[in-house]
Amino acid sequence: MAQTELTAQQMASAKEVSVAEFFEKNKHLLGYENLQKSLLTCIKEAVDNALDACEEARILPTIYVEIKRVGDNGDKFKIIVEDNGPGIVKKNIPRIFGKLLYGSKFHRLKQSRGQQGIGISAAVLYAQLTTGRPTKIYSRPSDSFTHIFELHLNTQKNEPEIVSEASVSGEGHGTRIEMDIKGKYTRGKQSVLEYLLESAIINPYATIIFLDPDNEKFEFTRVVETLPPEAKEIQPHPEGIELGILIRMLKNTQARNLRSFLTNEFSRVGGTKAGEICDVAGIDAKVNPTTVTRDEAEKLLDAMQKAKLQNPSTDCLSPIGSESVEKGLKKEVMPEFVTAITRPPTVYAGRPFQIEVGIAYGGNIDKEGAIQIYRFANKMPLLYDQSACAITKAIIQTDWKRYGLNQSGGGMPSGPVAISVHLASVWVPYTSEGKEAIASYPEIIKEIKLAIQEAGRKLGMFLSARHREHMLREKASIFQRYAEDLVAALANLTEKPIAEINVSMQKMLDNKGLVVDEEAEKKEVAEEEGETEDVKRRKEYAQRDDGAEEDL
Amino acid sequence: MAQTELTAQQMASAKEVSVAEFFEKNKHLLGYENLQKSLLTCIKEAVDNALDACEEARILPTIYVEIKRVGDNGDKFKIIVEDNGPGIVKKNIPRIFGKLLYGSKFHRLKQSRGQQGIGISAAVLYAQLTTGRPTKIYSRPSDSFTHIFELHLNTQKNEPEIVSEASVSGEGHGTRIEMDIKGKYTRGKQSVLEYLLESAIINPYATIIFLDPDNEKFEFTRVVETLPPEAKEIQPHPEGIELGILIRMLKNTQARNLRSFLTNEFSRVGGTKAGEICDVAGIDAKVNPTTVTRDEAEKLLDAMQKAKLQNPSTDCLSPIGSESVEKGLKKEVMPEFVTAITRPPTVYAGRPFQIEVGIAYGGNIDKEGAIQIYRFANKMPLLYDQSACAITKAIIQTDWKRYGLNQSGGGMPSGPVAISVHLASVWVPYTSEGKEAIASYPEIIKEIKLAIQEAGRKLGMFLSARHREHMLREKASIFQRYAEDLVAALANLTEKPIAEINVSMQKMLDNKGLVVDEEAEKKEVAEEEGETEDVKRRKEYAQRDDGAEEDL
Repeated sequence: MAQTELTAQQMASAKEVSVAEFFEKNKHLLGYENLQKSLLTCIKEAVDNALDACEEARILPTIYVEIKRVGDNGDKFKIIVEDNGPGIVKKNIPRIFGKLLYGSKFHRLKQSRGQQGIGISAAVLYAQLTTGRPTKIYSRPSDSFTHIFELHLNTQKNEPEIVSEASVSGEGHGTRIEMDIKGKYTRGKQSVLEYLLESAIINPYATIIFLDPDNEKFEFTRVVETLPPEAKEIQPHPEGIELGILIRMLKNTQARNLRSFLTNEFSRVGGTKAGEICDVAGIDAKVNPTTVTRDEAEKLLDAMQKAKLQNPSTDCLSPIGSESVEKGLKKEVMPEFVTAITRPPTVYAGRPFQIEVGIAYGGNIDKEGAIQIYRFANKMPLLYDQSACAITKAIIQTDWKRYGLNQSGGGMPSGPVAISVHLASVWVPYTSEGKEAIASYPEIIKEIKLAIQEAGRKLGMFLSARHREHMLREKASIFQRYAEDLVAALANLTEKPIAEINVSMQKMLDNKGLVVDEEAEKKEVAEEEGETEDVKRRKEYAQRDDGAEEDL
Repeated sequence: MAQTELTAQQMASAKEVSVAEFFEKNKHLLGYENLQKSLLTCIKEAVDNALDACEEARILPTIYVEIKRVGDNGDKFKIIVEDNGPGIVKKNIPRIFGKLLYGSKFHRLKQSRGQQGIGISAAVLYAQLTTGRPTKIYSRPSDSFTHIFELHLNTQKNEPEIVSEASVSGEGHGTRIEMDIKGKYTRGKQSVLEYLLESAIINPYATIIFLDPDNEKFEFTRVVETLPPEAKEIQPHPEGIELGILIRMLKNTQARNLRSFLTNEFSRVGGTKAGEICDVAGIDAKVNPTTVTRDEAEKLLDAMQKAKLQNPSTDCLSPIGSESVEKGLKKEVMPEFVTAITRPPTVYAGRPFQIEVGIAYGGNIDKEGAIQIYRFANKMPLLYDQSACAITKAIIQTDWKRYGLNQSGGGMPSGPVAISVHLASVWVPYTSEGKEAIASYPEIIKEIKLAIQEAGRKLGMFLSARHREHMLREKASIFQRYAEDLVAALANLTEKPIAEINVSMQKMLDNKGLVVDEEAEKKEVAEEEGETEDVKRRKEYAQRDDGAEEDL
């Protein structure tokens, strides 16, 4: 018994763990798994922050990225990322860069690249961990001063430690970050260059300049001179809200009665709907929300989720648009055929999201092996963890034979096809803090599949038209081989001159070659599973008609 | 310019995010991705804590698990987990269960199931999120009282909220937790039952009793009556320590000089080695560690990592032993052949770890398709995310054709084989907070491969002996078909009686059938790539010899 008491006492030595200590020990969770990936992650965090800041301030982003070798081992680099954004006010600089889980983006529902308040301070932590050097920040928040900070992150406290601090007079606006890190510089797949290239494609309104460690300069110039419309911040959608969240919202609300709580704190709940919801839940719409009990909250939630509410409005998201998706693919692979679609916004776990898909065929895409996949989330390329990503799962779960591609036993389809999928959301559910893959929420996988089917059908039409044309040409060429004999025989039979018969024969062949069998095409579309919106709507319509007939 | 200033000001609204808010929004990171997995995760966190507590208090664990349906929808459950462990002292109960990143295991280097201080409080958070109900804890820390708490977790503050609190007189010791959660109960793969079954196999000294929602009772009784030796807490090993960590250790140490800093705060650094390290780094061993500069620290680290130090001692880890691994596989699959090996401890990122591998062939293992994999980390079964796990990667990277299995194009080998891999470490690097897969540190993958090769070679010998035996029998049976004629002919030739010749013929055949070609076996081993310890040692030996000869 003494032993157990002793142990209980020992275990009483439990203490708090700072979130910085946690991530320092688990740095692989943040994308610092190996030297190559770590270098990419640092660049990524800085570039994504720069793009976010510019977009929020409605400035066309110009971003300068530089990587320099330092030291003799070849495994240490100085990285520099500078933007023309709004800068950061002085008092906020230390915590933005020197404290994990700190930021302006976590507590709002609005589409942005950053969302966790971890990324850039984790890069500062990584720099300090691997080279022991502080990170240097220059910020010009257009107040005619440049603030210069050198910072460490105190991991035990998860608070910044200021090494040096100065303000000098300066002009313009923007932010520049310099850090010394351990890393490995490579080109090709999963490299910094690939990341910047794909970033430029998905952010066509940004100019990105990159000076690599070998002093080679890459310039991705903006091809669009206007920013996309700004995404509006919204309230959560009742669909998918958890009971615990609802209870907390009821407890914390400023609203005086339940009706105004529902209309003010949720999106797509108007006065009438709010009344209906309260009726169904059996709670007076006039009660003070803070007095609602757990059991009542459970009924309320049930009623909220059964109420037929509109999907979230389209202005809460900032997709890049099907035209830009197409343009991006064209630029990248110069295909024979390309198509892109943007789905209307919908909801997972109360959070609006929207899917965009582009499919390209031919061009410089590899003809052998699996199709090429470009994954994006909130306008950021995702380069790692492809197999764990909801996008990959949706692609594998799609029946590509329907659209004319090979696909063996539930695997990745193959052929000269590139597919680009973009998830835009007020909160992207990443599979890890490193933001490399999207978690497999069923609602998200379903939407991606619907988008792929819509674009896939167009690919299928293109391929089958191409196939038919090819077949007809083949037939015609076989026919032509015997045409001379046939013409002679026909001339003999009809007693008309060979020249005349030759002309009508050629006419006939030309016509045939151009005919596309439109009926067959329509049938193909109808044969698809009833998963696309069109087919669904048609079916619903048919069912309504049936009902009406029965009523008569 | 007004716009940019405005934005800079707006962005100044940045604020702290509590780690509980972070994980509430990202609950899929903790294993709460869907209802089935969420139920399993809650059980897992409670059972693993119970096993840890019992083992630390040196008590043979008896654990009771119960899952009951509540409500009408079939998606809500009450779960109960009770142990005979040391209990928890009263003052610690609220924060152990009601605060994330709090515990006794994070700040020490010692093998245990829990390590993050997140698991059980995340389950409390999940219960509150999905049913709004508090978690109930009964703790009897053998002080003749039972403390009963009902707790919520305040996510905005990441602090416990006590709903009710009482102490009643009671006897014995142990902890019991009750929580209401949303979930889905299933059997088969990735189920609670599978988890408990595998836990019983890897913890043969524990008794686990499970009452399922259909009132069916499962009892896994302990088969071993002694606990494994307790793992000792150790200091970090210099191999793989990061510069940032070393700098912090230098700053925070109580040691008066560098030599005692090195010997006291690291494992496997004796006085002589410490002196050598200081010499190589060019720093006086007598300096006060807190005065060591960043540049000096860098040199010191370099010298520490170049010094040839012993591997960590074996008592810092608590593997289950090759016998238990074998026993587990035998119990599970009743194979024709089984082998198991335990590797000596080694280090990744300064943290000792050890690999155990068992391989079984035949029995009730599926003959078709990929081999069966059982993954364990610190005596916990890993049921999800197989493809992301270092164990899976090591298996795929092994050349199984060598050992007589089919393996197509860098994929998973196939055949009636089950392989069980256990990683024991003072800190397991999981790919996510949900602890479902091991991150791909190169040192870990390498060790797993070495272990697999060692066990695989034995499998290969078994299979090739089996194959040769089979071939010989085949030859013999063909021979036997013609034996009668042959015997007659020989009798005729030698003019001896048929019976006599028959006897010597049979003798010869019997002998042949038993001979195993030992030479061929040895050659096979030698043909392997020089990756196993034996071969490496032999090669090193050969190289030393070469050198010596040149010197002469």
